[in-house]
Amino acid sequence: MRPKSASPFLAACRCRPTSHTPVWIMRQAGRYLPEYRKVREAVDFLTLTKTPELAAEVTLQPIRRFGMDAAILFSDIMTPLEGMGIDLEFKPGPVIANPVRSAAAVDKLRVADPEECVPFVQETIRILRRELTVPLIGFAGAPFTLFCYLVEGGGSKTFAQAKAFLISEPEAAGQLLAKLGDTVARSLEAQAAAGAQALMVFDSWAGLLSPADYRRHAFPVVDRILTRLRPLNLPLIYFPNQGATLMEDVSTLPADVVGVDWRLPLGRAREILGPDKAVQGNLDPAALFAPPAELIRRVDQVLDDAGDAPGHIFNLGHGIERLTDPDAVARLVDRVHERTQRS
Amino acid sequence: MRPKSASPFLAACRCRPTSHTPVWIMRQAGRYLPEYRKVREAVDFLTLTKTPELAAEVTLQPIRRFGMDAAILFSDIMTPLEGMGIDLEFKPGPVIANPVRSAAAVDKLRVADPEECVPFVQETIRILRRELTVPLIGFAGAPFTLFCYLVEGGGSKTFAQAKAFLISEPEAAGQLLAKLGDTVARSLEAQAAAGAQALMVFDSWAGLLSPADYRRHAFPVVDRILTRLRPLNLPLIYFPNQGATLMEDVSTLPADVVGVDWRLPLGRAREILGPDKAVQGNLDPAALFAPPAELIRRVDQVLDDAGDAPGHIFNLGHGIERLTDPDAVARLVDRVHERTQRS
Repeated sequence: MRPKSASPFLAACRCRPTSHTPVWIMRQAGRYLPEYRKVREAVDFLTLTKTPELAAEVTLQPIRRFGMDAAILFSDIMTPLEGMGIDLEFKPGPVIANPVRSAAAVDKLRVADPEECVPFVQETIRILRRELTVPLIGFAGAPFTLFCYLVEGGGSKTFAQAKAFLISEPEAAGQLLAKLGDTVARSLEAQAAAGAQALMVFDSWAGLLSPADYRRHAFPVVDRILTRLRPLNLPLIYFPNQGATLMEDVSTLPADVVGVDWRLPLGRAREILGPDKAVQGNLDPAALFAPPAELIRRVDQVLDDAGDAPGHIFNLGHGIERLTDPDAVARLVDRVHERTQRS
Repeated sequence: MRPKSASPFLAACRCRPTSHTPVWIMRQAGRYLPEYRKVREAVDFLTLTKTPELAAEVTLQPIRRFGMDAAILFSDIMTPLEGMGIDLEFKPGPVIANPVRSAAAVDKLRVADPEECVPFVQETIRILRRELTVPLIGFAGAPFTLFCYLVEGGGSKTFAQAKAFLISEPEAAGQLLAKLGDTVARSLEAQAAAGAQALMVFDSWAGLLSPADYRRHAFPVVDRILTRLRPLNLPLIYFPNQGATLMEDVSTLPADVVGVDWRLPLGRAREILGPDKAVQGNLDPAALFAPPAELIRRVDQVLDDAGDAPGHIFNLGHGIERLTDPDAVARLVDRVHERTQRS
């Protein structure tokens, strides 16, 4: 078993030199893998997230097949919210039977206790730590992103109702964001206590906000969560999806690593974020549909954009697409490893 | 009737001083207006776009109610494509019965002749020029945006299939983009001949592309269209939605005006675009759900961001939301006019 200190992923999170550029892929455990679809034939998505042996199995599948440098817990950003008093289904995206659109509705929500509400998450992590030889990333959704689903009642292209609530009722919205922030922080603390070796916060809908609204509504609660988690001394990763215009603000967050989508070249992201933050990303998931030579060219371009300074974790700029050929993923992982080998 | 030369909208397009900052709103003729919904009770969307008297009527509705400084033809970016051999429905978004996903499918498409295929568009424009006292904007979708719908077969959050086709079959994709470019250019030329006084190209999905892919696949055909239209001597407006990271490239296009979504503050957009390009935007449509004082504050912030130099056309940063209160639109238009009055 590889000693923990030798993990290129953990070293890169700290901007330390590594033997090669580490790589993992957002949604690497997912529907593009035949072995994942096989597991899903027997159980639905929610059951899978709540059954530790199965959640651990699908977490391990891409590590076995491709040899990524990190695993990420198989779960969902909505999972911790059921304990708040939310009625949640997946059809297949999240659907909230009781959208939260008033101060009274916000008052009724509890801060969820992960030991009571999601013990299966911690159990999955304990199983994975026994099985894995690479670091395990725990994760949660950022409060504003969870807010979008809770207020809208499900997925949306523009989240018009969620943004309307944010702007028309900033006090009630602020209380909801605070409760979500406490729930997220407790969820991540419990994941760390169970053995997660890095913690990632997915702000999938940060890019819906102007810089001014991000600064006012979404940033403060992320700042509070990351500040609260710092004493755990685990790498903290923050991913503001479509956040090109938010990076000046993001640079001031106490995150070790910032995820970057493919719209912002990594060199430019590093200029804005400064030398103390590692970057994670940012190949366009569509590149995995390219012929092999073109895929390699695009992988190399991301590596070139990231430059030679330590502190780059290779990833896609967004979750992998369902129709992706697993062989393309193998080509990507192998190329990153071969091209960046520093012996 | 106001003489044409006195139009603040046309002057602002040329970065000339104006009596006040002109304002119009993307999708200003639409479902948020009760008088529009009344028209739609009798006809479906496609029929409305194809019936000149009705299309002209709904184009005029917001001008009558709010006194915007420009009208935009009521039509749809997909309208010119039926003449290419596309089978198009709206349910309510565009649905393409025969998605274009091969070189053979691209070969079968024709460049559409607007006189033959969409005479109702030109007739609508002729009616409007008799009725309107403010300038009329004609428009089309940008080739990459139309490509997204044609290949995907309809709307999508990620347009994964469209991007996969672009990246995996760049030659066939290039031929499709070229045919779309010719169709778009002919459509805009016909609109100009019928009387449109400014021409706008909506690149709604430009923001799906990395700067490198935008530069390679989407930019060249927009550049060709705008260059071809320049001899018409009408203001040319280009709107690369979610294009914050594309603005360096956009600054080199022969457009007079660049539309900016709310993610990029207008001051920053003007720095990148330079003093010769006017900017159009960029209030978040969600601001129209704010209480009146907060809406005013946000309108003022956009005006402050735009600065005092000529060449700002006030608009939203995206189309108006269906659930918007028309009274909020009145407040917006009045505020822009009052606050920027230069007597």
